[in-house]
Parts: sequence; structure tokens; C-alpha cells
Amino acid sequence: MNSVIPRATLDAIKPYLPGKSIQDVQAELGLTDVIKLASNENPFGSPVSPEELADIIREVGFYPHLGSAPLLAQLAQKWGVSQDQLIVGNGSDEILTMIGLAYLNPGDQVLTAAGTFSEYGFVAHLMDADLIEIPLTHFTFDLIAIAEAITDRTKIVFIANPNNPSGTIVSQAELCQLMERVPSTVLVVMDEAYYEFVDRADYPNSIALMQDFPNIVVTRTFSKLYGLAGFRIGYAIARPEVIQILYKVRQPFNVNSVALAAASLALGKDAFIEQTLHNNREQRLALTSAITELGYPVIPSEANFLCIWIGNNAADCARYCLEQGVIIRHLASFGMSEFIRVTIGTPAQNQRFLSVLAQFVVIQSKGSPL
Amino acid sequence: MNSVIPRATLDAIKPYLPGKSIQDVQAELGLTDVIKLASNENPFGSPVSPEELADIIREVGFYPHLGSAPLLAQLAQKWGVSQDQLIVGNGSDEILTMIGLAYLNPGDQVLTAAGTFSEYGFVAHLMDADLIEIPLTHFTFDLIAIAEAITDRTKIVFIANPNNPSGTIVSQAELCQLMERVPSTVLVVMDEAYYEFVDRADYPNSIALMQDFPNIVVTRTFSKLYGLAGFRIGYAIARPEVIQILYKVRQPFNVNSVALAAASLALGKDAFIEQTLHNNREQRLALTSAITELGYPVIPSEANFLCIWIGNNAADCARYCLEQGVIIRHLASFGMSEFIRVTIGTPAQNQRFLSVLAQFVVIQSKGSPL
Repeated sequence: MNSVIPRATLDAIKPYLPGKSIQDVQAELGLTDVIKLASNENPFGSPVSPEELADIIREVGFYPHLGSAPLLAQLAQKWGVSQDQLIVGNGSDEILTMIGLAYLNPGDQVLTAAGTFSEYGFVAHLMDADLIEIPLTHFTFDLIAIAEAITDRTKIVFIANPNNPSGTIVSQAELCQLMERVPSTVLVVMDEAYYEFVDRADYPNSIALMQDFPNIVVTRTFSKLYGLAGFRIGYAIARPEVIQILYKVRQPFNVNSVALAAASLALGKDAFIEQTLHNNREQRLALTSAITELGYPVIPSEANFLCIWIGNNAADCARYCLEQGVIIRHLASFGMSEFIRVTIGTPAQNQRFLSVLAQFVVIQSKGSPL
Repeated sequence: MNSVIPRATLDAIKPYLPGKSIQDVQAELGLTDVIKLASNENPFGSPVSPEELADIIREVGFYPHLGSAPLLAQLAQKWGVSQDQLIVGNGSDEILTMIGLAYLNPGDQVLTAAGTFSEYGFVAHLMDADLIEIPLTHFTFDLIAIAEAITDRTKIVFIANPNNPSGTIVSQAELCQLMERVPSTVLVVMDEAYYEFVDRADYPNSIALMQDFPNIVVTRTFSKLYGLAGFRIGYAIARPEVIQILYKVRQPFNVNSVALAAASLALGKDAFIEQTLHNNREQRLALTSAITELGYPVIPSEANFLCIWIGNNAADCARYCLEQGVIIRHLASFGMSEFIRVTIGTPAQNQRFLSVLAQFVVIQSKGSPL
């Protein structure tokens, strides 16, 4: 009997392999004290207490009602845009997919980097578009090479800024140069999931650039700084005519009501935000130095994670860390099999990772089989 | 300056107009005591308390981890299927979209009824497929007419059973007859969002039918009986080879972690489930009688809502109810502008709706302008 034939383009989609959770590792390896530095979550967890969400949870029998939630008004005020320049998604993952659903026809070209967040490729393949991956230069999005790669079939450019997993940024000047060369018929999506962690003064003001370049879309998330990864909420900022198109492909109840409430509360958690940014700034510096001293080069990071060159035995390193109860990410799936990525944690978490890495150095130097 | 051109097929998508929330109506009309019987939510709200979710909310800084959640194992046991026959979605809305993303090529035909849930049409348009709407017969999906409408371009048949908004069902015999005529290359999606409310003995056992017809997909939800509409969680049951394809288009973190936990808890809330089903059964009968006595025909319902013929002034009726603080649904957007749909509420809610409807009858009989 013949079966129902899926779309041919799905062949290009690699099945997603989720990382291990703390519970998985505890169960599989019989460990009790496991920490996760693998998914760039906030090491202080969520700033919103269960008690603060009790009222909305009592009302969760009702469908979410975006229009009654204060979040869009808060975000509009925060970023100095109008509410019709905003749309929320079930994580910025969903926003990226919505952009594909809104704009990508079969055979359109999607430009991004080789060695970046896999979601851009997923969206391209999902929409039967052609994915063009331009190599990173110095581990950074090469906007000159991207500008040169644009053809009349190019529809979307996805730029992770900071880039995941390298932690590097493109500058305001680089982005402006790109935008001047990109036709206005090409959408440039600035994925700024790690926006708040950037300290460099030349980081682009992508929202302000929308005045001159209406084809910019900015995506942001509550999963990183705001510690709400488990709730799933991200958003896009763009010109109203773009947002209006995205609303067409949005599921009416795409963001759950508890996430809407939690995000509103999180925006006001100034002490938590300050603590997170302060810790990240200090620990990024300290951890980078300490890892470098152990003999492993670290790519200078503007994000809340570090990308570390280990070499041929990077997979061994990741496995060793796992066995010692520290979950980190080996970057083979990013095409960077000699690298690992480590989320910047609390001082205690970072110390734990450092001592495991130091043990790994010793074991390696003795030539001991792992 | 030219702008970025969206996909042409989006022109076919009507912008979704969300219903009014209780807060909206309170604010706009200056009312305090407003009830909502418009979205077929559980009138008893959610069975899961904020306290039961406190632990998972404290962990919401982490991304959701489906593999560590007990939900798939619970559902597999409940329905006598294997875990590889299950997939969860951000509401069954997302499951329906995933089915489209997995299977629909441009120009494929999607068959459904005229006068049913709008999501099927949305999915067809989103994927640039052709939507063929077969009229309801006696307010019921006409599976004979649907079988006759199948062509070699047909890819998916969407059947809401019970149908929203008419509340009617197709029987096991009717579904079997359809399945025998549907080629195995056509997916038949049984949207069983209101499954648990059905009392008729001839309601299909669609999961069992998958043995003979591997092209059946069943969708269910936690938004109705289980009172978790605000959390967004639904699921599909199908043969493993279908589920495997759906996993390819699934976002890795599509269901939030609090919803996963709440759904697990809700499955065990026997007293709440019993209360909901008992109330619905009794009130469905009582409300149907009382509305009929007021002179308005009611379509016999197997769901948790009633579809009521009002006539030319159905929009006036819905507006009058709103002004009296009872939010119901006028069915113009379903192409049934002489009808309203009312969720079966608690006895007190239903009494309130009945007295407002009785007032409407009086006002109408006096010829008073509304």
C-alpha cells in the first residue's frame, strides 16, 4: 500500500538532536550534582516567582488574549516603537519560522553564515528555499562576502548578532555598509537573542536603522537575559508593513498566557537584570582568562557563552565534562568539531567547569585513554 | 523604494479577529460581572493549582525538555499506543499547521467542510494548497460527498468530529466507508478536540482504525475538557511513520515546560474530569430544551457548546448578550450568519445566558430597536 508522500524539501532537514537535560544525565550516569552550561540559559534561573504567576495560572482555562496583556505596550515603550511594530512568538524560533512562512517561495535564496544557529537553515529548508552559507571570517559574519553573494533570487539574509556559537558581533559600520548594498526587496533579519549582553560600543542600533532601511527585522527573546526559556516567548520589531504580514501567518494563540504575564513581570526585574549582566561581564573576562591559561584559545565573546578551541579531542572533552556532571556543547553540529561552547555560569559553576577542564588537560597530557 | 514581497498565497488568508476577552468587555462597556461562553473553554477553569506548578516554574529558566517529561508515556498508556505514535504541539492549532508543513505542496487539494473550524483553511492557504469546502449536510460533515470530491490532487482531508461550530459527529460506519474509498496516499485528519464530550455509541474509534488505515491522524487537545487553553498544548496520534515526518517540521522547544507539567497533572484529575463531563451532559440537555422553548432551534450537540439558529438578527442577539455581559459567538465568520454558538457553562452561567436570551425574545417581539 502506498503511503502519504511528505514534501520533498523535508529531506534537507536534519532531525534535531536535543541536548541532554540535567535529569537525563543524573539518570544515565548515576550522578547527583549535575550542572548545565549547554544552552545559554540564565544561570540565575527565572526572575519571576511562582507566587507572582498564581493569579494568571488560576485563569489558564481561558485562551490567551494578547490584546488584554500589557506586554506589547511595555515593549513599545521600552524600545521607542509603536505597537504595530511588534509581534510576539512562541520563542524567537517561531518568529524566524513566521518570517520564512511570510516571505519565502520555493527556489528563493536565503543567505546566512556557515557556523551559526541552525534555525535559519531549518526555515530555508522548510520553505523549499536554497540555503547559501557564507563562511565566517575570523569567526564573524562576513557582511562583505554576504553582500557580494546577493543575487536577484536572494530573499532573506539571517544574521545572528552576536553570533551563536562564536559570540562575535558585526558592527554598526559593517551593518550600514551591508544595508546600502542590499536591495530593498531583500529582508535582513538581525537575530539579537543575546543583545543585552553586548558591551562593545560599535554594536549596531538596528532599530534606529529601520528608519533608513525598512527591510530590517530585529528578533529578541526572553529566553536568555530574562531567564524564561521554558516559557517560550520571543518577539520581532520591524516596520508596521512587515509586522502586518507576519500577523497573517501567526497562530492566533501562539504565545501562552502565563508566558505573556511572566515576560511583563520580567521586564521590571531590574535587580535580577543587573545581577545577570554584572555577573556575565565579570565572569566572561575571568573565565576567558582562565581557559586561555589552561592552553585553550577562546574566541572573544560579546554574549553569555564562550566558544573554545579544544582540537581533535573536543568530543572527548565534552564527554569528559558530561561524565563529571558538567553539561556543555560540542559544536560538531555547527560544523566546528574542534570547538566546544560553554555558557557563562555563576562563579561557582564556572569554577566547577574550570576544574573539570583542568583535569582534562592533565589526563590528555598523560596520554591516558578516556 | 520597492519593499519585500510576501508570498502570494497569503492574500487568501483572512486576518484572524480574536473574540473579546472578559477584561475587554468590562473596560469597553463599563460592566463588572461578565461571563465568557464564546470559546468552548472549560467552565470550571483549570484543574491544576498554582501550587502544583511552583516547582516547574522555579525551573523555567531552562528550555523545555520533552524527553524528561512524563507526558508522552502517560498518553501512550492512556490510548494504548507506543510513544512513537505521539507528538505534542503548541495547541492542536500547531499540530494542524505541522501536518500542512509536512505534506502539502503548492496546488495540492485540501478537502474539508464549509462551516467548520477555520484552521483547516488557514493551513491550506499557508501552504498554497487549494481549499475545497464541501457543504455540510444536516449540519454534519458529508463524508459521501467528500469521498466523491477526492481527486488525484487531494492530499489531506480535515474532519472536525465533533464539528465546530455545529456540534455534530460522523459515525464509525460513515468514517469506515470514507476510509475505504480514500486512497492510501491521502491523509485523513480527525480533529477530535471535543472527543471526551461525545456520548453517542456510534462515535468512531479512530485510533483503532489506524490498524487498517495508516493514513489516519487524530488530533486531541488539553484546551477543552482539561481546562488548559491558556497553556497551549495539544497532540497527535498517528502511525510512527507519520509521526516521524511531523517531528521533522516540529520546533524543538514547541511546547513550554509548564504546559507539559500541567498536562501531566491534568490527566490525573479524575474528579474534575467527572464533574466537567457530568455538568456538560446535564446542562447540554437542559440548555437545549430551554432554548428550544424560547423558540430557537438548537442543533443536537455532542460537544461542549450549542449551535443555535436565531435568524436575520443573530448579530443583534450576540451584541445584546454582550451588552448584558454574556460573551457568545456570532457565526458569520463560519458562513452561518443566522446562527450563534454558546459554550455550555455551569448551571449559573447557563441560567444567566437563558435569561438574557429571554429578554432578547421580549425586545424582539416588541419590535424595539436594539
